[in-house]
Amino acid sequence: MSMALAEAHGAAARGEVPIGAVLVKDGTILASAGNRTRELNDPTAHAEILVIREACKVLDNERLTGCDLYVTLEPCTMCTAAISFARIRRLYYGAQDIKGGGVENGARFFAQPTCLHAPEVYSGFKEQEAETILKAFFRAKRP
Amino acid sequence: MSMALAEAHGAAARGEVPIGAVLVKDGTILASAGNRTRELNDPTAHAEILVIREACKVLDNERLTGCDLYVTLEPCTMCTAAISFARIRRLYYGAQDIKGGGVENGARFFAQPTCLHAPEVYSGFKEQEAETILKAFFRAKRP
Repeated sequence: MSMALAEAHGAAARGEVPIGAVLVKDGTILASAGNRTRELNDPTAHAEILVIREACKVLDNERLTGCDLYVTLEPCTMCTAAISFARIRRLYYGAQDIKGGGVENGARFFAQPTCLHAPEVYSGFKEQEAETILKAFFRAKRP
Repeated sequence: MSMALAEAHGAAARGEVPIGAVLVKDGTILASAGNRTRELNDPTAHAEILVIREACKVLDNERLTGCDLYVTLEPCTMCTAAISFARIRRLYYGAQDIKGGGVENGARFFAQPTCLHAPEVYSGFKEQEAETILKAFFRAKRP
């Protein structure tokens, strides 16, 4: 999670919403990324999607069986579904996202009948630090 | 929608789940694609995500304001959220997807409080043809 937070700081430095993610298998980091939606002009370039796509390339497989995802904020609905499709084993995240989350808030995709695979979910890791980065970022953007 | 169906047929020929999508702005086709999850080893490479990413590149913008999406099947939860993030104006789709859809089924993301933009939605276009392609594909895969 420290590395995911470092990716979040990196995203903030690039003017991106500061969220970071790391994908791990058997103690090895397969991919790490921060949000890049602005840089790439790609609304799907959330940190989670970027690490899922990268890790699939590394493993040459569209399923990340046995892989664990660390992300600083509760994933949005899009990423929650992508986590399910990728068959990720465990999801660890920092702060809850009441306004945009899709795990414990809103669509709660893992609890839907249309969800065919749900990872184990653990939340609250370094959540204060994750929240602090986000709050500082949005405060700085306000006039 | 005929072009989206042609993309679905193309996907089936490549061994991919036969779903096709086309993104249009002011009568001009910005992008068209069929599913490519297997070819790319990318669980996020649904037809809708591919055309959103391509159209954003074409317009050099992460928002597809004023753009309309045609897709042969009800988008899944991941794609439904991506459609919202991309600020797509109108969504036209063919068949409903009771098992995996995220618009009228399951997460119904556009109706969630965490959804900040919902397109106008129109469904049932050439739905029989869209369903026939899918049924034939899955029937052929059974032993």
